Amino acid sequence: MSSEQTPMETTTKTTEQVVAVDKKPREKKEKKPVEKKPVEKKGDVKANLLGAGCKKEEDFSEWYQNVITRSEMIDYYDISGCYILRPWAYSIWEQIQAFFDAEIKKLDVQNAYFPLLVSEKALTTEKDHIEGFAPEVAWVTKSGDSSLADPVAIRPTSETIMYPAYANWIRSHRDLPLKLNQWVNVVRWEFKRPVPFLRSREFLWQEGHTAFANKEEADEEVFTILDLYRRVYEELLCVPVVKGIKSEKEKFAGGLYTTTIEGFIPTNGRGIQAATSHALGQNFSKMFNIEFENDKGGKSLAWQNSWGLTTRTIGVMVMVHGDDKGLVLPPRISPIQAVVIPLHFKDADTSAVDSKAKEIADQLKAAGIRVNLDNRPNYNPGHKYNHWELKGVPIRIEIGPKDVASGTVICCRRDTAEKSKVEISNIVTGVKELLDNIQSNLFSRAVKERNDHIVNINEWSEFVPALDKKNVVLAPWCEKVSCEDSIKKKSSEESKNKAEEEKGFCLTGAAKSLCIPLQNQEHVKLPEIKEDTKCFCCQEKATKYTLFGRSY
Amino acid sequence: MSSEQTPMETTTKTTEQVVAVDKKPREKKEKKPVEKKPVEKKGDVKANLLGAGCKKEEDFSEWYQNVITRSEMIDYYDISGCYILRPWAYSIWEQIQAFFDAEIKKLDVQNAYFPLLVSEKALTTEKDHIEGFAPEVAWVTKSGDSSLADPVAIRPTSETIMYPAYANWIRSHRDLPLKLNQWVNVVRWEFKRPVPFLRSREFLWQEGHTAFANKEEADEEVFTILDLYRRVYEELLCVPVVKGIKSEKEKFAGGLYTTTIEGFIPTNGRGIQAATSHALGQNFSKMFNIEFENDKGGKSLAWQNSWGLTTRTIGVMVMVHGDDKGLVLPPRISPIQAVVIPLHFKDADTSAVDSKAKEIADQLKAAGIRVNLDNRPNYNPGHKYNHWELKGVPIRIEIGPKDVASGTVICCRRDTAEKSKVEISNIVTGVKELLDNIQSNLFSRAVKERNDHIVNINEWSEFVPALDKKNVVLAPWCEKVSCEDSIKKKSSEESKNKAEEEKGFCLTGAAKSLCIPLQNQEHVKLPEIKEDTKCFCCQEKATKYTLFGRSY
Repeated sequence: MSSEQTPMETTTKTTEQVVAVDKKPREKKEKKPVEKKPVEKKGDVKANLLGAGCKKEEDFSEWYQNVITRSEMIDYYDISGCYILRPWAYSIWEQIQAFFDAEIKKLDVQNAYFPLLVSEKALTTEKDHIEGFAPEVAWVTKSGDSSLADPVAIRPTSETIMYPAYANWIRSHRDLPLKLNQWVNVVRWEFKRPVPFLRSREFLWQEGHTAFANKEEADEEVFTILDLYRRVYEELLCVPVVKGIKSEKEKFAGGLYTTTIEGFIPTNGRGIQAATSHALGQNFSKMFNIEFENDKGGKSLAWQNSWGLTTRTIGVMVMVHGDDKGLVLPPRISPIQAVVIPLHFKDADTSAVDSKAKEIADQLKAAGIRVNLDNRPNYNPGHKYNHWELKGVPIRIEIGPKDVASGTVICCRRDTAEKSKVEISNIVTGVKELLDNIQSNLFSRAVKERNDHIVNINEWSEFVPALDKKNVVLAPWCEKVSCEDSIKKKSSEESKNKAEEEKGFCLTGAAKSLCIPLQNQEHVKLPEIKEDTKCFCCQEKATKYTLFGRSY
Repeated sequence: MSSEQTPMETTTKTTEQVVAVDKKPREKKEKKPVEKKPVEKKGDVKANLLGAGCKKEEDFSEWYQNVITRSEMIDYYDISGCYILRPWAYSIWEQIQAFFDAEIKKLDVQNAYFPLLVSEKALTTEKDHIEGFAPEVAWVTKSGDSSLADPVAIRPTSETIMYPAYANWIRSHRDLPLKLNQWVNVVRWEFKRPVPFLRSREFLWQEGHTAFANKEEADEEVFTILDLYRRVYEELLCVPVVKGIKSEKEKFAGGLYTTTIEGFIPTNGRGIQAATSHALGQNFSKMFNIEFENDKGGKSLAWQNSWGLTTRTIGVMVMVHGDDKGLVLPPRISPIQAVVIPLHFKDADTSAVDSKAKEIADQLKAAGIRVNLDNRPNYNPGHKYNHWELKGVPIRIEIGPKDVASGTVICCRRDTAEKSKVEISNIVTGVKELLDNIQSNLFSRAVKERNDHIVNINEWSEFVPALDKKNVVLAPWCEKVSCEDSIKKKSSEESKNKAEEEKGFCLTGAAKSLCIPLQNQEHVKLPEIKEDTKCFCCQEKATKYTLFGRSY
């Protein structure tokens, strides 16, 4: 582990910080972090002013890590795979929580809190389930200097923590449905190279765990929740997703079937699992003995679901919208939606500019817009423009002496860099319209880019070439596990170089099924399977058009 | 540890549950839980209907554990010292969060999230600090089957996790003040007997960590936060607290001084630390090298604070207000503020009653009152009365055929059991007034009871006798550590039997200083120290009137 540790000094610093850091005694230059992370050229002021410091298309991995650290979303930490979520990132998580929490409460889901730690006995009750998690489980074996008689695990997920209690609480059909959710941290001690937000050893999520008297109600909820997840990505984060079912090979360990929403990262053509809603069927209720007296007086096993959304949401949003200047944040979740920057010129009346700038900021704030007045005297406008562009704030409002005179301001959009004049008398309406435009533009732009990279194929020969063009692929498939294994194997062999190419993210060239898309999705067009359609890989009868891709 | 495990079967069950449990295979009768917890007489319906099942004054420990489990606040868990916070308890925590989070955001405190795990190097940087926590630290030494090269600890608190980052972020006086907060879980692996909410191995809290350029600003914040904590207890939970400063012996490990609010449990005359706000001074900034360029161009160390409020709040509130029927919840935080119960009689028109009951519930809900319509057909009114009294709901609204005819309902207060007629036409105003009365009555009742048990003494001879009468004591004190040690020792010897008496909570007879109260507190009267006042214990010069007591 120590070889994996990350000297603090390699984390991003502001200009003053970079200068000051040399004085710091805690430097450990000898340590070689396994994690690829931004290394600032010390004292290189320019590097800090030039947004991401490198081009998104040229070194996506370095771009990503520069952007999330320089924008003050993330800071690195001296335990590999663990990250600090700074307010700029955490407040986006709070926005997501506020939306989703309100929606599930409408569905009569109640929040609760179950313990972080789980006994070995409970953890290993459902065999398939534990097999899926065992290697990644972190074990507490000591307190102080004394070792524990029975080590306890840190939750990788809470099925085995909650369901023994469910077995005690659920006795009659009147106790159903039981719908609980918790907003918590979980730990999965992966040894793949970690990526902030996307693959970290600790992450934040909500996990919903529900139990029903029959399969119909359970099935309905699985898809209701899946659509809420879609709305988080599409309506809040402007990230289009494909709704679908996971293949047998990719489904949740111990579950009946897994529904998923799949995102797409255009820069490297990777698919990414965005959130999952699992139908657990009766597997867990059987193992944990969640049995109830049904309305006929007999005994039945509960039908259960579990569903989770994580802080991965933020990373996907960054990758999809960000550009060479830094973050590009959707207005709905941006911690600051508009920044007002007063422009001072020599010999000009600065007080008039400042008071008008404040007046505008106050008006916007009163109208419920999250606004910041950047009147810091020690930075010039150029520095401020770069600073707020790096942080992805949707609108910059510039106001100088001429603007005060003409009763207008310049509004600059972060998404398109377009500038427009807005009447100060009409500032609230003007800014609100602009925010709405930015929100819808970010989404439609992302939808077009995503759809341009979903390619329909029918033959294996077209598969890897399509992936190499940074696409995901829709292909007729037989849905057999054996066939999926060979798809993974063959695609990996045909694209050895891929792993190298993206070592920053430590991604392989192997492709897998992302999901079997549901019919009738607003933004996705699906071809029809015909009687005689053959599997693109094994040539046996195809049962479903399935989305394949390289993925995170 | 296995000897400490808690068979699930000993947790509280509803009537059906108690019957059904005998069929369950997971029983481990041979296991003796160290934790004292309610053991229901199986199938004893009466026990479940009779509120707490025992008298608060007769067996406080059993009463407490019955009430929190039967009211469905808490369920026990198979790891000793860890508990399940069920929605009835967790939603109270959500109320506390909503209030406190909004208040600190007004102070420009931002929320963030720092890792759960901490390296040994960081944890042990501040020596006094780690000495205070070392024995209780839980260590992760394995992932899956492989052991970690460098074990990592689970946070007992986050000073050592956050401050290395603060050292990187804080370079200039312009980076100050830095004010961050997080709502998280922490683990302290205590071996004292755990008590749900009050002393658990994992608990939920908020921890604020702030840094300032000078001592004045830091000091001001310490007391601003302390007063917010007072408001949580007094304005939300109706629990009076004494504001004060901790003695040298009792202050936070590694800090400069600790401010505290101290609660009082009348039933056993114990003091209880309710929340603390610490001035850390420059001890941590020195150890973690949190140095900044001050406005004179020189270097200074930051002045830091940390402050925390935990789920202990809920336990104290339960102990102070609860009675033999169960919980008594203050309206402001009660998940349900009023329950409407339609009364059906033979040959009476039930539909008129039901529709009027629904109409009333809808009106109250529309007015923003948290209301529940209990029209469950399978329970009789008597059962429902007991059920909602056990859960502590402030107002029960009864409506039968006569009431419909007369256009009135009966409102029954949980705090006094008083019944009053309320015009249905005036139901919203009537219920709102009643809720306000209950809120203020619970607080003034608790203030009186608390103040009746704060006794002023001047001589040692009066000390233990006063404690034995379930009082806390205000006495003139010299503030010397050596004197506090002997107070603890002598009081313990003089009251050997105390420990036995309260073994349910495993409390000792030893007394300690609770706090040195601040002057001019609204609900606490403090005597004046005179030039010649002597310490009640060592007879040296007394410097402060200090609050002493047995405590949790």
